[in-house]
Amino acid sequence: MPLWKIYHPADAYSAEDKRDIAQAITSVYGRVMPKFYVGVVFEAVSPDNFFIGGEPHPRFVRIAVDHIARTFQSDELKTAFMSRMSKLLATWTSERGLDWEIHVDETPFELWTIQGHFPPREGTEDEKRWMAENRASPRTHS
Amino acid sequence: MPLWKIYHPADAYSAEDKRDIAQAITSVYGRVMPKFYVGVVFEAVSPDNFFIGGEPHPRFVRIAVDHIARTFQSDELKTAFMSRMSKLLATWTSERGLDWEIHVDETPFELWTIQGHFPPREGTEDEKRWMAENRASPRTHS
Amino acid sequence: MPLWKIYHPADAYSAEDKRDIAQAITSVYGRVMPKFYVGVVFEAVSPDNFFIGGEPHPRFVRIAVDHIARTFQSDELKTAFMSRMSKLLATWTSERGLDWEIHVDETPFELWTIQGHFPPREGTEDEKRWMAENRASPRTHS
Repeated sequence: MPLWKIYHPADAYSAEDKRDIAQAITSVYGRVMPKFYVGVVFEAVSPDNFFIGGEPHPRFVRIAVDHIARTFQSDELKTAFMSRMSKLLATWTSERGLDWEIHVDETPFELWTIQGHFPPREGTEDEKRWMAENRASPRTHS
Repeated sequence: MPLWKIYHPADAYSAEDKRDIAQAITSVYGRVMPKFYVGVVFEAVSPDNFFIGGEPHPRFVRIAVDHIARTFQSDELKTAFMSRMSKLLATWTSERGLDWEIHVDETPFELWTIQGHFPPREGTEDEKRWMAENRASPRTHS
Repeated sequence: MPLWKIYHPADAYSAEDKRDIAQAITSVYGRVMPKFYVGVVFEAVSPDNFFIGGEPHPRFVRIAVDHIARTFQSDELKTAFMSRMSKLLATWTSERGLDWEIHVDETPFELWTIQGHFPPREGTEDEKRWMAENRASPRTHS
């Protein structure tokens, strides 16, 4: 459900860093939804293809996220989530001298399938089964 | 209008596969809108840049779509569209042993131009002309 | 805030072109918001990975934008913005014989941080400081 796209300088992250980042992100979502919902795509961008404020920026990490499975019901929940993620990600950004920015969009739940299955609604037995089995299977509720 | 971004393992698709996929997608939209609205971008992602549930996934296809020209007016229409697309895409995903996920976002009609022209509204004479000529031209309605 | 993704043929733009494009885009936003809000990512796409209407298109530029800091309050403002941007970008698209398309999405203000800071609201003293200093700093309003 969340699809994370992380644009980063080519030399910013090792293969191990990327795995650590993906696992840290997954651990946050994984408490309340199936872990396999979490997709993370890394894309190295060279400085001449990456501009901030009209200038090439060789030390910038830009993260764009789509949320699908959950929609935050208040501004307080939104800022709480972003605060938490910002602290989590500081390890691989601010604390390494990288500038960074992140934004999240929310997209329609009904326009989403995994393995051709419509994912279950939040809190249903189907969702519990998807979490327990960590894989998609047919939904039993409408 | 629809912009499809298809992240896939490098060895998953031949040039012919990609063309077949793009044409299959285009054929669905092309019945109700100009074919040239349909953009499809393929991006090969190596396993160390592609994580599902915090683990590298070498056999995963992740599709992210933006819809602009049309907005579904009910949840039933949304799920009907996704069911249809899921069946269509199974040929190049499930049936080849690839795991996969797709989600669609809907974006504002007024924030969209092609060749500098604002695309015509659904059902207008302008849209019929765009479909018949399969190219953009100035809109005659406001 | 605006994140611009520009898919283009590999030979369409020189390094200088890309800088010119990024600066032209930034100059529009920079009058009303901090320049460093503007991120532009260029991605060269080969013809066999880029389909328009189901066919490879070797001369197409596809631009996808996310707006975060500002939401247009009327359709008139939306079309005015798109008209302006379309004219601006014609220099690097239509006038070079490239076909092109652009669309903009609007995403939630509260789901956005820069350097771990929540950006200031429009028109606040904090925003003026961010503009004057062209960098992020803690927000003093709630």
